[in-house]
Amino acid sequence: MTGALGAAMLLASVTSQAQMKPEDQVHYRQAGYSFMSWNMGKIKAQVVEGSVPYNKEQVANAANAIAAIANSGMGALYSPETTQEKMGKENTDLKASFFENPDEARKVGSTFVAAANQLASEAATGDQARIKAAFGEVGKACKSCHEKFRAE
Amino acid sequence: MTGALGAAMLLASVTSQAQMKPEDQVHYRQAGYSFMSWNMGKIKAQVVEGSVPYNKEQVANAANAIAAIANSGMGALYSPETTQEKMGKENTDLKASFFENPDEARKVGSTFVAAANQLASEAATGDQARIKAAFGEVGKACKSCHEKFRAE
Repeated sequence: MTGALGAAMLLASVTSQAQMKPEDQVHYRQAGYSFMSWNMGKIKAQVVEGSVPYNKEQVANAANAIAAIANSGMGALYSPETTQEKMGKENTDLKASFFENPDEARKVGSTFVAAANQLASEAATGDQARIKAAFGEVGKACKSCHEKFRAE
Repeated sequence: MTGALGAAMLLASVTSQAQMKPEDQVHYRQAGYSFMSWNMGKIKAQVVEGSVPYNKEQVANAANAIAAIANSGMGALYSPETTQEKMGKENTDLKASFFENPDEARKVGSTFVAAANQLASEAATGDQARIKAAFGEVGKACKSCHEKFRAE
């Protein structure tokens, strides 16, 4: 995708959500990431650390929640009005650079969605070694976006 | 289920989550309900009000997010320490009566989960009349719990 096309698509997405207030976009996206984080924690405890006994159904349900949230079109919760530069440190960590690099932003987003889908798929089988590997890929995808677009 | 058994199961669930702080339980459950609310809003706009053109994939993804969150074991995010009586009005709307009526609490919870699963199932087919009906049942399940266990 060219930068211009990426920017146009991002703009189209933003325009269709024109009725959402920036503070609502931030509220809902933070809710989504928080809820994914709780579910990541459950998988980590059961499959990575072993601090909680492995329960196949719980891990599968947690992975499904992460994947379903990732697939719910969270791009609509991002607009240039919702950056830390516009809204202040106390409200969001999103850097304005997210909108200056739409191709990169789209790439980290789609990598994350693919990793979340893979985790849900592995969690359904109950193969803990494969779940652990897929969990690692989701973690990497989270970290990659944080490093690029989240303020310290 | 007898009241005593319900209470014992609720206690077991709470005990296994003993490491979670009450404020984290409240934070994560509010995140889950907020994210479901955003997705309910999308389905309402497209299927009930028609204020946004119907998009089968968006509605299916929204319904999947609601169902996956509903199925993720949110019961673990409730403990007697997380009521409005214990934490104050500014932190939560959960009434202590939730823990005094475990059978009723479990019933509203399972009704909600069943309605969310039905909505996801109808959303996958694309039959808007059936999606609208299933959406109404989810709304009723939300309202039923709010009326019983959410403070004004």
